[in-house]
Amino acid sequence: MKPILAITMGDINGIGPEILAKALARRETWSVCRPVVIGSAEALADARKYAAACPPPKVVERIETVGQGRAEVPVIDAGIYAPQTHPGQLEPETGRCAVEWLKAAIGMAMDGRVAGIVTCPLNKEGIHKAGYRYPGHTQIIAEMTGSPDYRMCLFSKSMRIVHISSHCSLREAITLVRRDRVLTSIRVAREALVRLGLPRQRIAVAGLNPHAGESGAFGNEEEREIAPAVLEAQASGIDCSGPYAPDTVFRSMREGQFDAVIAMYHDQGHIALKTVEMGDAVNVTLGIPIVRTSVGHGTAYDIAGKGVANEESLCAAVDLAVRLARAS
Amino acid sequence: MKPILAITMGDINGIGPEILAKALARRETWSVCRPVVIGSAEALADARKYAAACPPPKVVERIETVGQGRAEVPVIDAGIYAPQTHPGQLEPETGRCAVEWLKAAIGMAMDGRVAGIVTCPLNKEGIHKAGYRYPGHTQIIAEMTGSPDYRMCLFSKSMRIVHISSHCSLREAITLVRRDRVLTSIRVAREALVRLGLPRQRIAVAGLNPHAGESGAFGNEEEREIAPAVLEAQASGIDCSGPYAPDTVFRSMREGQFDAVIAMYHDQGHIALKTVEMGDAVNVTLGIPIVRTSVGHGTAYDIAGKGVANEESLCAAVDLAVRLARAS
Repeated sequence: MKPILAITMGDINGIGPEILAKALARRETWSVCRPVVIGSAEALADARKYAAACPPPKVVERIETVGQGRAEVPVIDAGIYAPQTHPGQLEPETGRCAVEWLKAAIGMAMDGRVAGIVTCPLNKEGIHKAGYRYPGHTQIIAEMTGSPDYRMCLFSKSMRIVHISSHCSLREAITLVRRDRVLTSIRVAREALVRLGLPRQRIAVAGLNPHAGESGAFGNEEEREIAPAVLEAQASGIDCSGPYAPDTVFRSMREGQFDAVIAMYHDQGHIALKTVEMGDAVNVTLGIPIVRTSVGHGTAYDIAGKGVANEESLCAAVDLAVRLARAS
Repeated sequence: MKPILAITMGDINGIGPEILAKALARRETWSVCRPVVIGSAEALADARKYAAACPPPKVVERIETVGQGRAEVPVIDAGIYAPQTHPGQLEPETGRCAVEWLKAAIGMAMDGRVAGIVTCPLNKEGIHKAGYRYPGHTQIIAEMTGSPDYRMCLFSKSMRIVHISSHCSLREAITLVRRDRVLTSIRVAREALVRLGLPRQRIAVAGLNPHAGESGAFGNEEEREIAPAVLEAQASGIDCSGPYAPDTVFRSMREGQFDAVIAMYHDQGHIALKTVEMGDAVNVTLGIPIVRTSVGHGTAYDIAGKGVANEESLCAAVDLAVRLARAS
């Protein structure tokens, strides 16, 4: 049986409703999962003007009533009544809706009523204006699932990157380059590669400093924290190596030498992946008890309501969630 | 008249002689400049087995005797007698030769006897074993030309990156994110773009932290140091903007929105460029009184002596040096 995925609509003033309609207009989306939209049926109905092949939305109360067909898109509004959309506008109310829908979806995943969640983008400023202090999706998920040691990851066709830290200053990120965090990241990466069914799980660990420290000339985090973690992981039977020079290790992965890279800070991995390919980049949260993927882009207020948004990343996020969910 | 370029051979146990022979086998190299190799005539003669179309080397004593033709490759050994090559082997003696040839080339450029220098790779460990304390080419050039405030840059077809610092730990690099260094880098970048004859000089300045600090939530270097430098540069008439999120600004440049990006540390720029394209990456040193470009790769001991090295980066380095030299 196809897994049920809860797909949150995110900020309805962004491109969320549009990419949802476009993704749900594709037969392939329905062939891999049973999608349930957590969001506004009105916003989705309106977004069908960009994707006429998207089935009409139908509000459902309980996830148990979701069928196998694709005659209608089941929508759960979780008791949150969304305002009218104003594409491109920053409004606290749409920020509030995005957070509440996300919380509802997390609850469903924690209960096992859905096999995983896929999130459309929310606007951080919007949720702050709505009174939430979360910096983003992931922290809400980490808090609700009791997973402070989560890992933010970026996956694409040719690259899989697990970051040992995420949203903090670069100065703080350096202090988080610790043996225990590196080792946990290697383990989390390996588990994900196994779940994805990859034949091999060759994990490369990036250095922190230029040239991976050049034997201690440019910093000693490699010798002090990273190399010992690699050794410990190897001793436990994991196929991993490093630390490698950060400016070539991602290319080596693209060329097929590695299946995943452990990045030492947010931009190390993000620059590598986003400079090369944006279209199919998927944000994945690992180290949490539920399956969660997300589009790799933001609300894109500048193009919201213009019909030009690209659903490729959302489709890739759905595919990846299905693959992770099937193995759970 | 075509400019004379001094091309240093680098470490003869690496791929230097081979890529030189291959580049000099191309007619285009001779059509843009008058190349003079600073290195070993024997090593170049031997490397012709990989590129039969490379003219035979001829040792010359004085640069003034170099003609316009391509019947022979003029080689200046600068009184340094190189040992036999042992491809892939780390030897202090070949490290010493590489440094001395480089010094000779710098002297020629400082005297105005050559229009610029292009460097093939040396091996840092090799030069350390030979007793030099320099971390690499650039510091030798900076010292000999009296230019402590040089900038290491990476240029390719679609990207031009000026780094505000180069070979130091990431921890130290953060302390170098200062208004004055950012401003100098913007000015140096603009000057280079003008010399290259680009119609526009749109300079983007990257932030230091994830999302360029997210309005101070992830670090304040953007507000404190980077933004004021951008404002000051704008006030002086430079077309520059930022700070931008580091993980998307390089892509924006690739897509044609900017002509150059100012990177806040070595790997920020290096990861962006090297993950995308290696072949035509050229290392350029700006902020020094001579024209200097370099291949974007290392000695590649692992493939030395196998005939498979690619000369594309060297050819791109020659082209770029010619363009910079013509405008001097």
